[in-house]
Amino acid sequence: MYTAWTIGDIHGIGPEILLKSSREAITGRSRPLVFGSEKALRFYSHTLGIGIDIAVFDTMEDFENVSELPDGILPVISTGEPDGPIRPGVISAEAGRIAMRSIETAARLCLDGKLVGMVTAPIHKEAIALAGYSAIGHTDYLAGLCRVPEPIMLFYDPSSMLTVALASIHIPYAAVPEKIRSMDFGGFLDRLSRSLQTDFNINAPRIAVLGLNPHASDGGVMGTEEKTIITPGIQDYTEQGVVEGPFPADGFFGSRRYRDYDAVVAMYHDQGLLPFKVLAFESGVNVTTGLPVVRTSPDHGTGFDIAGQDKASITSFIEAARLAERIAKNREKRRQKAKGKRQKSDE
Amino acid sequence: MYTAWTIGDIHGIGPEILLKSSREAITGRSRPLVFGSEKALRFYSHTLGIGIDIAVFDTMEDFENVSELPDGILPVISTGEPDGPIRPGVISAEAGRIAMRSIETAARLCLDGKLVGMVTAPIHKEAIALAGYSAIGHTDYLAGLCRVPEPIMLFYDPSSMLTVALASIHIPYAAVPEKIRSMDFGGFLDRLSRSLQTDFNINAPRIAVLGLNPHASDGGVMGTEEKTIITPGIQDYTEQGVVEGPFPADGFFGSRRYRDYDAVVAMYHDQGLLPFKVLAFESGVNVTTGLPVVRTSPDHGTGFDIAGQDKASITSFIEAARLAERIAKNREKRRQKAKGKRQKSDE
Repeated sequence: MYTAWTIGDIHGIGPEILLKSSREAITGRSRPLVFGSEKALRFYSHTLGIGIDIAVFDTMEDFENVSELPDGILPVISTGEPDGPIRPGVISAEAGRIAMRSIETAARLCLDGKLVGMVTAPIHKEAIALAGYSAIGHTDYLAGLCRVPEPIMLFYDPSSMLTVALASIHIPYAAVPEKIRSMDFGGFLDRLSRSLQTDFNINAPRIAVLGLNPHASDGGVMGTEEKTIITPGIQDYTEQGVVEGPFPADGFFGSRRYRDYDAVVAMYHDQGLLPFKVLAFESGVNVTTGLPVVRTSPDHGTGFDIAGQDKASITSFIEAARLAERIAKNREKRRQKAKGKRQKSDE
Repeated sequence: MYTAWTIGDIHGIGPEILLKSSREAITGRSRPLVFGSEKALRFYSHTLGIGIDIAVFDTMEDFENVSELPDGILPVISTGEPDGPIRPGVISAEAGRIAMRSIETAARLCLDGKLVGMVTAPIHKEAIALAGYSAIGHTDYLAGLCRVPEPIMLFYDPSSMLTVALASIHIPYAAVPEKIRSMDFGGFLDRLSRSLQTDFNINAPRIAVLGLNPHASDGGVMGTEEKTIITPGIQDYTEQGVVEGPFPADGFFGSRRYRDYDAVVAMYHDQGLLPFKVLAFESGVNVTTGLPVVRTSPDHGTGFDIAGQDKASITSFIEAARLAERIAKNREKRRQKAKGKRQKSDE
């Protein structure tokens, strides 16, 4: 089986990272199948002297018709080629269009069961806006495509063992309290817990929830959201022993208490990502959970400032590819188990 | 000369930490003079088998009348003794009163030039409230005593070289945008810059300012405060090359960019303290800058849960004592220099 590696913005570090990562042994049995632009891959391979041979196909059918690829050849499905030259560091509608087409093509093939999952190189917000897309990122776009209203954005770091889920993501600082107030904590924790079971193979997940205010309001001295919203919101789960909190965030991270939990729910973007990025450094991975499609990505941007300069680190992408493999395997195991149970009860 | 070590809450880990720290060699020429309760010190010394000999005085005058203490004897000025027994882990008005008296006594002696500075063990908010004090902490209380309206809370970590200043501190999450809106950024940066010069002996300090919103609003996509408040607020300083920002906080910490600056201004408590506590772990130190009194403290609480159990780490207290020495020395050097200049211009 193959895992889709989508090229991201061809003027960023995506193509370089894909090419270099294809040389690394990723644990698991699936192999990479790149979705993107032949021209971009050849450009970076040549310019940076990476020396990876590629085999290009127009469609998945064409690719499937080939019996077996020789070792060391990276298969690519072209999802569009730019008219002009490749211009590292330049925002363009063309690059945005190719990036989004590669995501759409790969996602549909995942939904059809033709691929085990997808690992996505970074796209550029302005480029995809120029290309006419209204989604502000992968998560948004895939949620629409898969018709899943609220996937959860998880950040996973294999080195520190920290996994963070965000209760709110790309919204202004000031909009967070209202977002928390209107949130369905039960539904969120249900989905998170299910993903930890299915995707991470954790039978009885333990989840920590952080407070919103400094020191989780210190008993109400600084803010009320812990008492009026978060504590009642998570009560059913704290009573079941699945969830603990709300914790004062600074002490929680300072004392490395996250090591006792399978996931930590942060109330807002920086509350989760400041400690995460400090701890994970280069090894952090994004996962979109709750989708029928397995999707992971490296925890960095398009790197326009270093594109085409042989400076990009592949650490995060490799970890993302490993995690996609692991999630796909865990889901498959559950499916087999469920099938076994159904067959047993049919007897 | 002597540096005041104030005992903090006698039912917490303060007395244990003071006793154990007195055995360590702190760089510098001043020696510790403890302000607190004889009974508490003797209790913990005995219970935990620390074995430090103390010499107790009622007042500073009494202490000053003693010509020289033998080595290994820790001098103590009693600022009140509890009626009943020492009860580790118990919140009490008596402990709150003794803690606050020790701070007041030490601070007044610092203002009189009798001590080089003070290193304060942690106090308990509820205990000092029970004792009738309205201040919510050391910073607050010392600001009132020294008649300095807005001291700056700095967090300094010698291990990671990260120094964080907070634009807002112990206020609810939702109150931060309004606080930032009404802030005098110029005055704040002036005071911070002056403290880095005077206390840290940095001639031309470089300061980084963080944004409020995720990704510093990504050009206005998530929030407006960067554009309407922070950028204009710091403009004079960015033009002078003293300040840079506002930076997206997650990337700033993730890429270790703080290493390029002498201090980082965080907009709110958790934005500064989450990365700080992850990075500093046990070596972080608090400093109250902008006061006539040199004041540092360890970056942890009263530790009621481990009080009297010989479990407290002295790392942060030792670093706090070292920093107090360093600041006092730097201030003294500046004073001598200024004096020299004045004398020269008088000739």
